Amino acid sequence: MIFALGASRPFGEGVAALLGLSLAQHEERDFEDGEHKTRPLENVRGRDVFVIHSLYGDADDSPNDKLIRLLFFIGALKDASAARITAVLPYLAYARKDRKTKPRDPVTTKYLARLLEAAGVHGVLGFDVHNLQAFQNAFSVPTDHVEAKGLFVEYFAELKGVERVVVMSPDAGGVKRAEAFRQTLGSTFGADIPLAFMEKTRSAGVVAGETLVGEVGGATVIILDDLISTGTTMVRAAGACRERGAQRVFAAATHGLFVGDAAKVIADDALEKVVITDSVPPFRLNDRLLRDKVVVLEAAPLFAEAIRRIHAGGSIVELLGD
Amino acid sequence: MIFALGASRPFGEGVAALLGLSLAQHEERDFEDGEHKTRPLENVRGRDVFVIHSLYGDADDSPNDKLIRLLFFIGALKDASAARITAVLPYLAYARKDRKTKPRDPVTTKYLARLLEAAGVHGVLGFDVHNLQAFQNAFSVPTDHVEAKGLFVEYFAELKGVERVVVMSPDAGGVKRAEAFRQTLGSTFGADIPLAFMEKTRSAGVVAGETLVGEVGGATVIILDDLISTGTTMVRAAGACRERGAQRVFAAATHGLFVGDAAKVIADDALEKVVITDSVPPFRLNDRLLRDKVVVLEAAPLFAEAIRRIHAGGSIVELLGD
Amino acid sequence: MIFALGASRPFGEGVAALLGLSLAQHEERDFEDGEHKTRPLENVRGRDVFVIHSLYGDADDSPNDKLIRLLFFIGALKDASAARITAVLPYLAYARKDRKTKPRDPVTTKYLARLLEAAGVHGVLGFDVHNLQAFQNAFSVPTDHVEAKGLFVEYFAELKGVERVVVMSPDAGGVKRAEAFRQTLGSTFGADIPLAFMEKTRSAGVVAGETLVGEVGGATVIILDDLISTGTTMVRAAGACRERGAQRVFAAATHGLFVGDAAKVIADDALEKVVITDSVPPFRLNDRLLRDKVVVLEAAPLFAEAIRRIHAGGSIVELLGD
Amino acid sequence: MIFALGASRPFGEGVAALLGLSLAQHEERDFEDGEHKTRPLENVRGRDVFVIHSLYGDADDSPNDKLIRLLFFIGALKDASAARITAVLPYLAYARKDRKTKPRDPVTTKYLARLLEAAGVHGVLGFDVHNLQAFQNAFSVPTDHVEAKGLFVEYFAELKGVERVVVMSPDAGGVKRAEAFRQTLGSTFGADIPLAFMEKTRSAGVVAGETLVGEVGGATVIILDDLISTGTTMVRAAGACRERGAQRVFAAATHGLFVGDAAKVIADDALEKVVITDSVPPFRLNDRLLRDKVVVLEAAPLFAEAIRRIHAGGSIVELLGD
Amino acid sequence: MIFALGASRPFGEGVAALLGLSLAQHEERDFEDGEHKTRPLENVRGRDVFVIHSLYGDADDSPNDKLIRLLFFIGALKDASAARITAVLPYLAYARKDRKTKPRDPVTTKYLARLLEAAGVHGVLGFDVHNLQAFQNAFSVPTDHVEAKGLFVEYFAELKGVERVVVMSPDAGGVKRAEAFRQTLGSTFGADIPLAFMEKTRSAGVVAGETLVGEVGGATVIILDDLISTGTTMVRAAGACRERGAQRVFAAATHGLFVGDAAKVIADDALEKVVITDSVPPFRLNDRLLRDKVVVLEAAPLFAEAIRRIHAGGSIVELLGD
Amino acid sequence: MIFALGASRPFGEGVAALLGLSLAQHEERDFEDGEHKTRPLENVRGRDVFVIHSLYGDADDSPNDKLIRLLFFIGALKDASAARITAVLPYLAYARKDRKTKPRDPVTTKYLARLLEAAGVHGVLGFDVHNLQAFQNAFSVPTDHVEAKGLFVEYFAELKGVERVVVMSPDAGGVKRAEAFRQTLGSTFGADIPLAFMEKTRSAGVVAGETLVGEVGGATVIILDDLISTGTTMVRAAGACRERGAQRVFAAATHGLFVGDAAKVIADDALEKVVITDSVPPFRLNDRLLRDKVVVLEAAPLFAEAIRRIHAGGSIVELLGD
Repeated sequence: MIFALGASRPFGEGVAALLGLSLAQHEERDFEDGEHKTRPLENVRGRDVFVIHSLYGDADDSPNDKLIRLLFFIGALKDASAARITAVLPYLAYARKDRKTKPRDPVTTKYLARLLEAAGVHGVLGFDVHNLQAFQNAFSVPTDHVEAKGLFVEYFAELKGVERVVVMSPDAGGVKRAEAFRQTLGSTFGADIPLAFMEKTRSAGVVAGETLVGEVGGATVIILDDLISTGTTMVRAAGACRERGAQRVFAAATHGLFVGDAAKVIADDALEKVVITDSVPPFRLNDRLLRDKVVVLEAAPLFAEAIRRIHAGGSIVELLGD
Repeated sequence: MIFALGASRPFGEGVAALLGLSLAQHEERDFEDGEHKTRPLENVRGRDVFVIHSLYGDADDSPNDKLIRLLFFIGALKDASAARITAVLPYLAYARKDRKTKPRDPVTTKYLARLLEAAGVHGVLGFDVHNLQAFQNAFSVPTDHVEAKGLFVEYFAELKGVERVVVMSPDAGGVKRAEAFRQTLGSTFGADIPLAFMEKTRSAGVVAGETLVGEVGGATVIILDDLISTGTTMVRAAGACRERGAQRVFAAATHGLFVGDAAKVIADDALEKVVITDSVPPFRLNDRLLRDKVVVLEAAPLFAEAIRRIHAGGSIVELLGD
Repeated sequence: MIFALGASRPFGEGVAALLGLSLAQHEERDFEDGEHKTRPLENVRGRDVFVIHSLYGDADDSPNDKLIRLLFFIGALKDASAARITAVLPYLAYARKDRKTKPRDPVTTKYLARLLEAAGVHGVLGFDVHNLQAFQNAFSVPTDHVEAKGLFVEYFAELKGVERVVVMSPDAGGVKRAEAFRQTLGSTFGADIPLAFMEKTRSAGVVAGETLVGEVGGATVIILDDLISTGTTMVRAAGACRERGAQRVFAAATHGLFVGDAAKVIADDALEKVVITDSVPPFRLNDRLLRDKVVVLEAAPLFAEAIRRIHAGGSIVELLGD
Repeated sequence: MIFALGASRPFGEGVAALLGLSLAQHEERDFEDGEHKTRPLENVRGRDVFVIHSLYGDADDSPNDKLIRLLFFIGALKDASAARITAVLPYLAYARKDRKTKPRDPVTTKYLARLLEAAGVHGVLGFDVHNLQAFQNAFSVPTDHVEAKGLFVEYFAELKGVERVVVMSPDAGGVKRAEAFRQTLGSTFGADIPLAFMEKTRSAGVVAGETLVGEVGGATVIILDDLISTGTTMVRAAGACRERGAQRVFAAATHGLFVGDAAKVIADDALEKVVITDSVPPFRLNDRLLRDKVVVLEAAPLFAEAIRRIHAGGSIVELLGD
Repeated sequence: MIFALGASRPFGEGVAALLGLSLAQHEERDFEDGEHKTRPLENVRGRDVFVIHSLYGDADDSPNDKLIRLLFFIGALKDASAARITAVLPYLAYARKDRKTKPRDPVTTKYLARLLEAAGVHGVLGFDVHNLQAFQNAFSVPTDHVEAKGLFVEYFAELKGVERVVVMSPDAGGVKRAEAFRQTLGSTFGADIPLAFMEKTRSAGVVAGETLVGEVGGATVIILDDLISTGTTMVRAAGACRERGAQRVFAAATHGLFVGDAAKVIADDALEKVVITDSVPPFRLNDRLLRDKVVVLEAAPLFAEAIRRIHAGGSIVELLGD
Repeated sequence: MIFALGASRPFGEGVAALLGLSLAQHEERDFEDGEHKTRPLENVRGRDVFVIHSLYGDADDSPNDKLIRLLFFIGALKDASAARITAVLPYLAYARKDRKTKPRDPVTTKYLARLLEAAGVHGVLGFDVHNLQAFQNAFSVPTDHVEAKGLFVEYFAELKGVERVVVMSPDAGGVKRAEAFRQTLGSTFGADIPLAFMEKTRSAGVVAGETLVGEVGGATVIILDDLISTGTTMVRAAGACRERGAQRVFAAATHGLFVGDAAKVIADDALEKVVITDSVPPFRLNDRLLRDKVVVLEAAPLFAEAIRRIHAGGSIVELLGD
């Protein structure tokens, strides 16, 4: 039984359809005082319920609001005697604020876990979570996660044998992710694919610039990250590739948040294509961008299969090919 | 040690000043992706910490957002080893959604309690909570609540001996609250003050109208409610009083939410004055209304004394004169 | 698998029989020191177990005693590896003490919830619980409740088309309940049924008397309440109806506690019939009363169907026609 | 701050007086439907509260009732913001039902622990608990216990040097307790005191009788047990001593329950004196017995000192001389 | 689905084979820093998982180490979404340290219970646990236990009708266990089997020696205990039997720990045979002892049947014939 | 009140002495069956208790054993009514196994947190924990951590102005730690100190070697890591520095585990000195190494001050200069 809240409804319909289901019906009402009421319209007693809600946001559209709606709806499902409730989170808010960087900083991933568990969730399904360590340590209930890696490999399969491909991480922190993608892509191509990454250079304790480590001259570069926020990181990395003679530069990221001036930023010529999934609906981009530059891969099949396995006792590990 | 978040900062400063303190410093940062980070800037280890946050909202300013900020900040205080954390809520969101009225409705007060407790709160201080039963049953941690009754009695003290005063409830559900106010006011005035209330009349199962029960002819009527939302309930009751010959009509309510067209509605001539507290900042009203019609009583002294007693082991019960 | 403790055994047998089952066997032993031992005599491992215990009492027969027996038996079921344990409470003790009316009052419904949950209950089924808000906010485990409304509608169906029926609440607090009954009865009768209620009148802050609000002259009045304790409330309301010219007056209440002098009180001629359910066995009434005046409706079919649905994943909401 | 509920009030007054305090005030009201309401009449916020309630009972006076009153009162103390709540239990009910002896038996000590903890207790003080292992394993909160051993040693000090004293256990299970008493008494007397005990003899798998193991001829025998229920165990042991030539026979037991025909049983001449404490008020005994045979030692000084130490951080271990 | 960790793997294979299964695969890796990693190699999502780990030890082989491995593996199973996890503990460590014998002693059985529950266990299966009361009171999750009694009865069945058999407890604390065995054996033999036991004698407060209570002259004595540690208790009891004219002396104990010089001790001629189960692998004994004196009964059939019943909802109580 | 278990006793004595205290007394007994018993020998009721236990190990000395001893001792402290219990962990076991790297891997840091919390800990103090994110997300109770950075800065202060110093991370994962050290050292030296690090080079998907990134020619290099296990990482990095012309090479690491052949490895001439703290006693090194090459900085002052602040409500953040 699958519910999808708010803006995640189209995504949820796609997932449900792939499982031969319709989305379960619910009511979402907003009141003038800013409060809301969400309730299932169908009997959920004894059912294995999945609630899809992507917790992205921007300055006007608060992930806090989405989170409370999810928490209260989970509460209502529990009170209506649902047997098991799994929160399906195509985009997990606050995953980048996963530890204290300044004194007394909030450990936000942990709080999010505590709140979901207090509401009554029995499991959580994430998607290329920014910090998997924090995610796995924060939750007491079992967590599962799926990855966009396979979707990207499939998309870039057409490059096989045609060009020299280099996988790149736009910063040092993402090298591990890029490395995993590089290996999977390489085993698909039957070839060793080199890795490159951007590295900060410092002078007198201040970050002075960035250097590209690795060889990209003449190559087709795929810059991989877990998310695109304002897009500047990607574009800066793409620019560096071009300067060093890269022929084509693709950006690939699971979550296309596109906050602030992202639409303008990613229009930069240095990037040939920006490949994302629909974990965050790309509604902040204009039609032209979406037609010409941004490629949106459908994550619904991945989620449908993961939900099927969680429901029936299948292995997510095997789904990911790990 | 007192923190006040966001728009509750001016209110909190008033409370702190009355206790001879300054508000403790914290940082609230908002990010472009709609996420935020709030952290205490002072050492809270082993301290008895109070966090003031009024959870009101309207269509643009979400109580959900305020609630998440409160929850995460409580989490950060707990992680920073605060000895005790009390959430001070001048206005408690979702208190009117305190039970299932339709199948599978959320029991929102309960969920709010679970979330605050999961975040790490040790106690909660409410203010004329809409449904005290739900509030007291929902929380596992001790709750306290204060009431505006004394502030209203003080404000209306000038009417003593001058005019015939009638206390009125704008609906049947508020009769208990009006009755308590009537008694306290009466013992201040040394006189028996009559009660009146509005009652729904029905025809063929549909609410057809309302009737005023009680005698208000020639009297000064104080219509008492816990909150003013759009203001229509108050104005309708005031109109009924006028029709039945009331000389003066005051509206008194603890929480002035003033959502939707409230500014226009309460401008109605039937109401002489609208007396509220500053539990919700009356920023949605224009200056003229605030100067001519709306009287804002300061709740800070009440909260300051309650916090002093909670901290020092005093009795809130005695503070309320119960 | 259905157990019924102590005096609830006959009721439980009725419920079980309607489901084609026998009551599961258990042993209840009492010792000379006032302690007891209750244990299941059948294997409950992995079973979905329901325990029926009506927590009524009077001065000699303590609901406290019944509650401890229920709690310890639930503990024994949990230790014997029952998969799910639902407490079925035809009458819920302490439901009228649902909040603080005096300083430091116990919030008894909440404590009852905490104790049942600590014992190991997974769900609770109530029956016309006095304060549904407190009940729903107090429990963390899912709660369900059934209502006698349908039984009463069925019983009074014979009045359809024959007489002018008025539904009455014996006090202001019960208007909501009476209203719901009035609507259901009206839609059965295909007619609009008026509502009346008793209202307290005060003088100098003291309750001076009661007034009947509504038109009952020449009508057949059904006074509806959730429970009959000493019966005086019902009889006073009935007397008021008679004074105002009501032709026939019925009392209908889900729970017939009949404490104190209730047997004498309800013998009053003002009441034609007193209609109750068997949620509390009417053993405190003499045979003559039971033969001539008190009608006991069987709640077993309602409970049997509710248990069937809780077990099989059906909807209680739909059972109630909400 | 010390409260004492119901019949434990006189005992509690004694304890409080020894600490230079009065008992804190509370209200206990009983209603006609068998429900009750207990609430503190004094401010308990931030206080270290002790609640004394001896959970004894007989067939008419249910320990279940006492237990619920204790649980609800603890709940009310917690809700009134008591800082710490210690349940002081001169007699702990259900301590003899500490494990499964038959299939699916309740593990009652554990359930009692879970309920007290769910109500909000922070610590428990017991008194010669029947099964210390079960008691210590069942509670998650810290437990303390005191022993009557010292009171008995003091009482029997007058026998020092006068007569040959033998300590006896009335059954095999109590040998450990008797042994501890024998040692303490011996070190007071500066002499080695022998031990005796009764042992069941069996024939064909049935208990056929009992044999006295040890030498009691010409001796003064002190039969020690934790409690006297019907008294038959004690009297049987005393009889055996007399048959074997004991000169004087005393019974000493911490808890004098005296259920059933105990008053008649202990009147038996075989017993010279029955020495108990006032953990259970000896109200079931007639004046003559109390004057001539039963000696009631005051446990209040022991409890007063234990409470003082628990409050001030002293050692109970050292109080017991262990 | 059955896992068996470390040295319990052979035992687990036996259990699995009897259920027509293979042991589920897992990986156990040890690192140079003394840390380890254990993980299931098979999908466990939604499965009913049993983990067998016997927590015995000696000075070199720490039960602490075995316990942490069990706890972490249970954690990994929970995170991998196992539906139910039952810890199967042929030998439960720390069961003899079940209460405080000295001031501030650890209550180890309780801590073990808390840790297993914190790790995520849903049930525990024990085997002749030393202190059943402590075990049952310590765990919140349901516990089951099986007994070796039936295996011993079967083994000694050949003595039926041939010789006069006496059952003996090597100390006073084990009389209850010996009594239960005596009864079962007796009903198998169709004869009344006498009981004997060793009792400590004291002089001046010091244990001076032990006396054998009961008649063993000319008899075949079966000394029964729950475990053999160094073996001295058994050998001393056997010696006493021989002195009193016993013809043959068998030792029977569920758990053969054989720590210290046990191999040498039990070689003593006083004992004809030492009958144990394989709850602890008898690897500390040399081949000669195992061939000539020690009989190892297989407990696997008992565990296989218990696991089958726990999985399928059968009764352990009936399995034990209680 | 400070306890130190087992091998951490000397370290604990140093800490206690700096606070003007003696270590609190406890008893640790080991039994022949590998079990143990640890109990406080002093009254801890109402005290603020710190337990120091460094959870290092090697193949013979199991951190599992240390962990169980810590958990059981915390349980005993809780049962003895300690007011607050803080686990002080100079070395935290399993911190490197902080997430799933293979399917169904244990999330060990989380399990460790759950176990410590189940035992009854109120806070944890760590020391240069390997993965601070995992650590902070895993614990529900407040955590604090201290860092050796200041000790190293102090030690290397003598290099100020004398030589060109470069700070180096021996792998990419430690760059963040090295960066923080570089900044603090630089602000002490009043100079900008460059950073270098080792980076893996790959060929065909396999790690082929490592390259040194940064300029170390003619410099004095301080290679910083959180721990030294076998020492090979450090020595390889030192060798690379030497090849690239470094004049002097120091290794600095908080935790000197020195497992396996570490003593031989770190004897390598490439390293001038190996600077560690005494979080792990360097007992695995021979005297010569300790005299000539390994410098052990005392962490006791840091811990003493942290404990003082945790006890008295001071700020650890300010202690670290953050």
